[in-house]
Parts: sequence; C-alpha cells; structure tokens
Amino acid sequence: MLQTITWTGHAARLLDQTKLPAQPVYVDITDERQMWDVIKRLVIRGAPAIGVAAAFGAYMGVRDFAGNNAGLLARLNEAADYLATSRPTAVNLFWALNRMRETARTAAQEGGDAGAIKQKLLDAANAMLQEDTRICRAIGENGIKLLQRHASASGQIDLLTHCNAGGLATVQYGTALAPVYVGHERGVKFHVFADETRPLLQGSRITAYELQQNGIPVTVICDSMAATVMQQGKVSAVIVGADRVAANGDVANKIGTLGVAILARHFAIPFYVAAPTSSIDLSLPTGAQIPIEQRDTREVTHGLGRATAPADVDVYNPAFDVTPANLVTAIITENGVAEEPYEFSLRRGCGK
Amino acid sequence: MLQTITWTGHAARLLDQTKLPAQPVYVDITDERQMWDVIKRLVIRGAPAIGVAAAFGAYMGVRDFAGNNAGLLARLNEAADYLATSRPTAVNLFWALNRMRETARTAAQEGGDAGAIKQKLLDAANAMLQEDTRICRAIGENGIKLLQRHASASGQIDLLTHCNAGGLATVQYGTALAPVYVGHERGVKFHVFADETRPLLQGSRITAYELQQNGIPVTVICDSMAATVMQQGKVSAVIVGADRVAANGDVANKIGTLGVAILARHFAIPFYVAAPTSSIDLSLPTGAQIPIEQRDTREVTHGLGRATAPADVDVYNPAFDVTPANLVTAIITENGVAEEPYEFSLRRGCGK
Repeated sequence: MLQTITWTGHAARLLDQTKLPAQPVYVDITDERQMWDVIKRLVIRGAPAIGVAAAFGAYMGVRDFAGNNAGLLARLNEAADYLATSRPTAVNLFWALNRMRETARTAAQEGGDAGAIKQKLLDAANAMLQEDTRICRAIGENGIKLLQRHASASGQIDLLTHCNAGGLATVQYGTALAPVYVGHERGVKFHVFADETRPLLQGSRITAYELQQNGIPVTVICDSMAATVMQQGKVSAVIVGADRVAANGDVANKIGTLGVAILARHFAIPFYVAAPTSSIDLSLPTGAQIPIEQRDTREVTHGLGRATAPADVDVYNPAFDVTPANLVTAIITENGVAEEPYEFSLRRGCGK
Repeated sequence: MLQTITWTGHAARLLDQTKLPAQPVYVDITDERQMWDVIKRLVIRGAPAIGVAAAFGAYMGVRDFAGNNAGLLARLNEAADYLATSRPTAVNLFWALNRMRETARTAAQEGGDAGAIKQKLLDAANAMLQEDTRICRAIGENGIKLLQRHASASGQIDLLTHCNAGGLATVQYGTALAPVYVGHERGVKFHVFADETRPLLQGSRITAYELQQNGIPVTVICDSMAATVMQQGKVSAVIVGADRVAANGDVANKIGTLGVAILARHFAIPFYVAAPTSSIDLSLPTGAQIPIEQRDTREVTHGLGRATAPADVDVYNPAFDVTPANLVTAIITENGVAEEPYEFSLRRGCGK
C-alpha cells in the first residue's frame, strides 16, 4: 500500500500527490517552510493527513533550536502560527498544531529541558500518525455497518464519492473509503463512482488510483455526471469526507460536495459524511462561520496543461463548500454514528 | 462578431471551436466526409449549428454528381444517411437532413433537372442558415421578456448557464444566450456564471469567450461550483439550450444539465430551456427514448493534455443527460414560451 506520510527518523517522507496518477514520487521534508509549501500546494492533502504533516512541521520548527524553554515555546508558537496559515478550512490542521503547543507546555511545566521537550514533540507527532490509522480503521468499522443496509440483492454496495477521502487523505484507510477497505477485507463487493473533482481532479487522480490499486471496482465520471448515474439507479449511497464539521452538523468539504448532497436528496439516496472527531469544530455554531479557502484561479483556467478559458476572464475558485446538516443522513466518526439533531449527537462525542 | 458558419460560394467556412479560446481558426469544408468529421469532432457543435452544417454537407454530397434525377436522389439519401451517423442526440441534425431530402424530392417532382435540384439544395441550406439567425433573434425577444421578471433591484439579471448555447452554437445570437444579447443591445445589465462544462469545456472555452467578446460580464466556474453560487444567492435564473426536447417536455442537453436543474429546483431558482422548434421531437413521447451519445473515454482521462486518471480505469462518458419536464420552468422557442403541461404547449407549436 502507498504511504501518505511516514517518519524516517530525520524527515517526514510524503507521497507527492500532485504527481498522481503517474509513478509514485516521494519527497522528504525537513523544515517547517518546506512543510508549509507542500501543504499549500497539495503535495499532501486531506484533512487528517495535513494535521499529521503539520505536527511534524511544528517539531521541525524547533528541533534545531538552541536556547531556553521559554524561547523554545515561543519558537514553537511561531512555527505553529506560520504553519496554520498554509490552508484555512480543514480544522485538523489547527487541532494538530494546538496539540503540539499543549504537548510542549505540559513538558515544560513538568520540568523537562529543551531536549526533553523536543523529544515529546516528536513523540506526539508520531503518536498522531499512529492514532490516525486506528481512528480511520474505527471509522471503517462503524461505516461498513451503516453501508451494508444499502447492499443490493446481489450483496454489492454501489457508492458514489467526491474528491479523495481515502487512504491518501489520511495515514491509512481514509475516512469515506475506510468502510470500503474494511468491507473489502471481509469479502463485501463494492462499486464506486469517483467524481473526478475539478479543478484539481483528486477524484480521478487519487481516489480512482487508490481504489484500483486495492482491487475495488471504480468508474471515473466528471462531476457533472453524478446526477445522471443517480437517475439511472446506479448509486445506493453517497459517502464523502469532511474538512470541518460545525457544531450543528453543517459540513465543509471539497467544492462540489454540496451539489452532490442536493442530488442525493433529490433522488432519495442517503448522503453520509465520514470524519474523525478532530474534524468536528464545536466552537463554530454553524457552517456559515467556516472560512472557505479561495485558491488561484489558474487552477481552473490553466490547471491542465493549457489555457482552457479566455485570458483575463473572471473566475471564482472556492476550494470548499458547506453542505447544510439537513442534507446529511449521518456523520460517521471513530466513536460512532451521529444523526440529527447534530447539536446533541456531535456534542455527546458522536457515540451512539 | 465571430462567424460560426458561412458559405463562401464554394465551401462551408467553419470556426474551429476545438481551438478556442486561442486565436480563431477557420476551416473550409468542401465535401461530406470532411463535414461528418468536423461534426463528430465538435469543430462545429450546438444543435442548431450542426443542423445547418449537415445541410451544407448533404449538398456537398451531390454537387459533383453526374447522372439522372433518380441517381441524384439516391446519392443525396446516401450522403444524408451518412451524415446522420455523425452524432445521435441533437435532433436538428436529422431535421435539417430530412428538409434537404424533401427539398430534392419536391424539386424533382416539379420537373427540375439535376442542376436545378442541386441549386435548390444549395438554396435550402443557405435558407436554413439565414433562418437560424431570425429564429435565434426571436428566441432572444421571447426570452428577454421572461428574464426581465428576474432582474434585481439594480436592474441586473444574474444568470447561470451550462455548456454553450450561444452564438457559436448557432449561426448567430444563440439560444440560451440570445436573450442576453438582445437585452444587452437595449442596455439591460447581466452577469453570467458559465459552468466550464467538463469534459470538453464548452463553457469556459466558448461561452466565456463569446460573452467576453461581446462585453457581457461573465465568471467561469467549475461545474461543481454551481451549487455554491446558487446557495450564495448569486443566481436569479438558469438558462440552457437543448439538443432534443421530447413531446412531454423532457430535455436532452449537455451532460450536467440535469444536475443544474435539480440544484435550481432545490434553491427555488427558475430553470429555462431555450431552443428552436426544430429541436423539439414530437415523435418521442418522453426523454427516455432520446438516444444519448457515449463518447471516447479519453475525453475524460486525457482531454486536457495529460493523463488525469490511472491507466485502464473504467470511465463513463455520456455526452448528454435528460432533464425531466417537471424541473423545467419554461421552454422558450421562436414561436413563444411553452409551459407545463408540455404535452399540449409543445404540440400547439409553443405559441402562448
């Protein structure tokens, strides 16, 4: 299986996802400026994966620091603040960075010297890496129980997904695709429509790639074809990831998710969101408060090797949209499955 | 203004739309095999435009024919049957070819010789070319009356369109964009969101291009962004063209149209279809009988200069979808505006 992110003992080794579906290329990241850049450029992407990456980035920001504890904590905050500017929407980034700050503060309070604090920070980043795999596995276990309700007479589960919330958006297994991998291990049959997901084509480049690598039948469609395959009865359930979930269950996810949710509602197809609890931001009452990243318009007009729109044309390129909670059938987390009213189920920790 | 198709006296001169938005390139077509190829490859596209192009192609199929009238009619049928295989969905193609067959039969019955029949065929093709401009102008006049109901307090009309149903899909003015051009002449202000329209990007390459050339404010979005701009209240009405309308008002149009119609319904935004009566196929009771063209999967995986999906991945690439009549607010034709129940309004000839 491809490794999204590993720790070599010296560097964070990342699969360069901008190069997929061509031959896998790995890059070794050794300082926080490089880490900022690879997060910004989507070399590594997916809310859980960028959380882990940022944690290593924060560690890199202090590992060569020579000075006292107060200086080290200040330097860590500086590095974390800087890394936090790489992408605004996925809350896992801030969650992971805050966990790193907390780790350093606690270690300092416990009387550790700079060396001990640095070691705790590295341990914390490695723990998040390990933990992410366990969390995704648990999402898979909780999700497959839900999805099995939607198996066809032949036992096959026909899914549609948008963007990539698979193993390559996390350390392993993924969020939206975790139930597929867990089910596949147990012999459950799947077919997945992968929306190509313009402008950066994470669906055709990444989701199709990893499903194909893992032997799961997948059909690539343009985003504009989701309605027609639903109309044809070829989709039993939609499952997507999330970059941030507000306290009321509104879901920010890759641009196009809102449209898919509306189509699913129109065709009475369940629409599931799979995300770790670290993607849930209880500090925001609704999705209206989630900052939506606006990206370079050239991703739309020149992202594919040549100009596909006239010069100087106005372009709107939000990277995410917000799906209102009332279109979300359930939110699958590592702790269980949350359903409406999300104000209560999410605060309860998503147990069920 | 760019010329989609003109008759040079010897050749049909077509703007090569596969090259847009780069510098305009014209190609002169002189025989029916070339015409088949340029229709197939979308050098010329748009239901009304391919009707006119096919008419010239049919004429080219017989212009060098040396033989008697029966032979000429047989050759014309052969050329028309051949041209009819270029694309299956837009009914204008068959409508135009049948009009050419009818023209030849009538001319033969009236006792014309082969030269006279050929002249009548050329005249018929040129008449269709002229007529298309008048028809589109009338669609524009009928459409602007409807759209003005949706002007904002400042008088601006905020539209979203999918694919290209503009001047470049017809001889002039377009269908969906005709009301925009007619209104613009009269000082009405517009803003148009142009869905880029994967896989072949007729929205970003062609609609944005022609609106920009004509001084109409346009913003390009990916197809997956239509939902979010509607959610933000930036769209007062959707207007699209049609490749074929069934007797019950079901509309076949560029893939993605169905999705846009469902989104418009969700956000209570009117969804208009603009099409000449030659796009209405009363012989088909419903859209389920409309043949949907499946196109080369490489349009999805390699259409933009490099591989954007893994090798050998399964791809589904229907060129059109069918929007059920109940999602269509009204159908604007050259004769007037048809509303539900379409079974009656369309048969009445769309007058109102």
